[in-house]
Amino acid sequence: MYRVDLNSDLGESFGRYTLGMDDKVIPLITSANVACGFHASDPVVMKKTIEMAKEAGIRVGAHPGYPDLMGFGRRNMNVSPAEAKAYTLYQIGALDAFCKASGVEMQHVKPHGAFYNMAAKDYKLAKGICEAIAEYNPKLILMALAGSEMIRAGQDCGLRTASEVFADRAYEEDGTLVARTKEGAMITDENEAIARVIRMVKEQKVQAITGRDISLKADSICVHGDGASALAFVAKIRESFAREGIEICPLADIV
Amino acid sequence: MYRVDLNSDLGESFGRYTLGMDDKVIPLITSANVACGFHASDPVVMKKTIEMAKEAGIRVGAHPGYPDLMGFGRRNMNVSPAEAKAYTLYQIGALDAFCKASGVEMQHVKPHGAFYNMAAKDYKLAKGICEAIAEYNPKLILMALAGSEMIRAGQDCGLRTASEVFADRAYEEDGTLVARTKEGAMITDENEAIARVIRMVKEQKVQAITGRDISLKADSICVHGDGASALAFVAKIRESFAREGIEICPLADIV
Amino acid sequence: MYRVDLNSDLGESFGRYTLGMDDKVIPLITSANVACGFHASDPVVMKKTIEMAKEAGIRVGAHPGYPDLMGFGRRNMNVSPAEAKAYTLYQIGALDAFCKASGVEMQHVKPHGAFYNMAAKDYKLAKGICEAIAEYNPKLILMALAGSEMIRAGQDCGLRTASEVFADRAYEEDGTLVARTKEGAMITDENEAIARVIRMVKEQKVQAITGRDISLKADSICVHGDGASALAFVAKIRESFAREGIEICPLADIV
Amino acid sequence: MYRVDLNSDLGESFGRYTLGMDDKVIPLITSANVACGFHASDPVVMKKTIEMAKEAGIRVGAHPGYPDLMGFGRRNMNVSPAEAKAYTLYQIGALDAFCKASGVEMQHVKPHGAFYNMAAKDYKLAKGICEAIAEYNPKLILMALAGSEMIRAGQDCGLRTASEVFADRAYEEDGTLVARTKEGAMITDENEAIARVIRMVKEQKVQAITGRDISLKADSICVHGDGASALAFVAKIRESFAREGIEICPLADIV
Repeated sequence: MYRVDLNSDLGESFGRYTLGMDDKVIPLITSANVACGFHASDPVVMKKTIEMAKEAGIRVGAHPGYPDLMGFGRRNMNVSPAEAKAYTLYQIGALDAFCKASGVEMQHVKPHGAFYNMAAKDYKLAKGICEAIAEYNPKLILMALAGSEMIRAGQDCGLRTASEVFADRAYEEDGTLVARTKEGAMITDENEAIARVIRMVKEQKVQAITGRDISLKADSICVHGDGASALAFVAKIRESFAREGIEICPLADIV
Repeated sequence: MYRVDLNSDLGESFGRYTLGMDDKVIPLITSANVACGFHASDPVVMKKTIEMAKEAGIRVGAHPGYPDLMGFGRRNMNVSPAEAKAYTLYQIGALDAFCKASGVEMQHVKPHGAFYNMAAKDYKLAKGICEAIAEYNPKLILMALAGSEMIRAGQDCGLRTASEVFADRAYEEDGTLVARTKEGAMITDENEAIARVIRMVKEQKVQAITGRDISLKADSICVHGDGASALAFVAKIRESFAREGIEICPLADIV
Repeated sequence: MYRVDLNSDLGESFGRYTLGMDDKVIPLITSANVACGFHASDPVVMKKTIEMAKEAGIRVGAHPGYPDLMGFGRRNMNVSPAEAKAYTLYQIGALDAFCKASGVEMQHVKPHGAFYNMAAKDYKLAKGICEAIAEYNPKLILMALAGSEMIRAGQDCGLRTASEVFADRAYEEDGTLVARTKEGAMITDENEAIARVIRMVKEQKVQAITGRDISLKADSICVHGDGASALAFVAKIRESFAREGIEICPLADIV
Repeated sequence: MYRVDLNSDLGESFGRYTLGMDDKVIPLITSANVACGFHASDPVVMKKTIEMAKEAGIRVGAHPGYPDLMGFGRRNMNVSPAEAKAYTLYQIGALDAFCKASGVEMQHVKPHGAFYNMAAKDYKLAKGICEAIAEYNPKLILMALAGSEMIRAGQDCGLRTASEVFADRAYEEDGTLVARTKEGAMITDENEAIARVIRMVKEQKVQAITGRDISLKADSICVHGDGASALAFVAKIRESFAREGIEICPLADIV
């Protein structure tokens, strides 16, 4: 029996600004990464998001990002490992307050955007993040790019780690994602994307952009809820998985 | 035997900006109110402040404020009770992350500045704050202005409450602080201030600005560490208390 | 011949967050109030908004607000007149940079949200705002609530003033808007709203919520572009005005 | 006759936080770089700083930075050239509002911290900044690292450029500053620092860390006012320049 988690970024609205279709994507996923107020979200949004997740019975995790609301946490910032550790502690704690008030147990932590991408390649930065998680609550699962420095740092800190894969992204031979600026970076054909992700789950393999097969672990698949076509694609993944005998369940039941 | 807590606002530095003489005031107090990043402080400062407090063996509490760094949380803002509740949860949780990482148990919550003053007079706002505390951790002590609506709201939420008094401020007959803009608002004579506070602790009484005695509870005295003369005044309070047989100890040992 | 300006708040998007249908409402209005980065907007949005307004040939003004992005500038904040003056100068100058870079002449200034509402009733606060405008560029037109303290402050500072009216809001006898929390505050019948606004323009009169007629000046009408029905209502106003011989033209051609 | 400008970063206080000794350094310099609210400063501080500079008769320039108050604009951020252009326009305009209100003519623009350092090496980023300056007001002088990509971009945009040198920093052979992390990066001997800077002004030469002489233009020298010893060093530079027949005068009289 194969098992995989479907995760999506939630709670990205801010004040008067609404982003994403959280109520639509929640029924389709098993783990929600909830923004913590640095790159997106605010306390009122976080409270509501945790309550929605609780009601739907899905698991939640913290989604800490760089302190860059204007850039949505997508711009590289040169923060030190010590700063990264403090920023992670702050954001995990802030989100956990809403979990506690709602009687929800936090499942995981997945850094956001540029924080995720930089830490995937920079062991020291990743270490700062993982130390924060381990010192806060060593039962939390670290979700990070399959095969990344962050997975390595998480293991070194004694954390359970969940390897995340992307259905719509091409991979380099070293397991990193092909930069969006390069041709072929995005897998635009839905059937191809689904076939790839099924192979990742069943065989722990994917064909790199060079044509050569590489190994990667697939504990969770990142999906999006920011539009009708994104939602339709998630529904299609779910149907395909049902046919293939792949069970969709929360991270905590997998790693 | 009389007992009272001495509290001070700590961890108010931010990024490149240093505020207060935390290392100097820590040895003189028993409870520190640590800013949580809304009106002052940042994650790196919070981490360091909790570590300093731990090393010195003093107790710590969260000092949540309005989201107004430019105004240092001192300007009235018209936030709703629901917003106040979410802001309080967020900030308590954020600070508690550093407590947990350092193996420190959070003792209390004291709202800051305009948040404190508005909630002292507005029961609904105070209720939002107190619900946050009770839902997060009902063992936390609420520190608030003696005789205020916030004390009442805290009791209604089942919280232990600590009544705070001010040595250097005059009181109206209803127990509220005389507005700083009114003549006689500040008690500028140090000996008079100390005599007043000793009477508050021993007799639970103080002479209002009108000349009439009023009753008030004095669990904790607010002191400042933002300059040499402020520090000298705290030392003088400590000496006077020693002579008067008043023991200075953390809130948790009093309420 | 009657003349009136139609104004709308524009450029309220921020970073990853989109708000409003600026491209749809621009063809329907004559003056745009562009957010300046305190309550909404960011430099990239401001640049684009000024370029769009220039291309469409409509006039632009600064729309300064309180430094409260999380509350969209809609929450009362207790800023001093000196702070209000500095905040207004800062925001006008910031927006004017984009006007200059695009070869656009700024037409007016209209404070936003709680800044607008508080200044409508508080002469000292309004004076701070108007001094900023007059010291920056005395040719700028102040747009403010008809009959408000802000109009009076603008006149005292030697500014040209434009009186703004609302089609969808009820008025008290003293010319202030009926608070949204009171019954009857909103004029929900579109035909009634249009009939009222036509009378305001032609007779400078409107029936207050008490039933009594009051006088008010109507140089500009505030319209919204945040949805299909709002846009349809603006189109309906335009058609009615055409039938009634009311010319829609920018503020600068009226006051 | 040799001439050079002495510049210093001013107006870096923020809200309740005071930074620098602006009143002490102003009498010693000829050009002030005033922070614009992104990495430091706020509207109230900016207003006061411009008024102080005016009273002292020194020239002022805008000191735009990255939107990173927590990091004081010292952390590299991956902003695009288009974002850099918009951020520069916004900040120049904001500061210019206070100049206009005070009847002061802005003299120059010098980017701050990581914005300055990244643009010194990245022509595209520098071009975005310089386009902003040229489109806002082509009479403004660009102050940038001597020999940098930003000087080149400024010239390509038709701006007058002022080459800045540092008395206390070592140079690589290519004219860039030796990274602070490398040994020998700081010139700690005051007499050596002064001798170096005199040679830069008189001979347009400096000995690189490798021992080889390199050419560089020295229109302005960066000095600091953040402590008693920094101020004493500036006074010492002034005395040495007087003896050497080097006149200290504002940028606008030099380039």
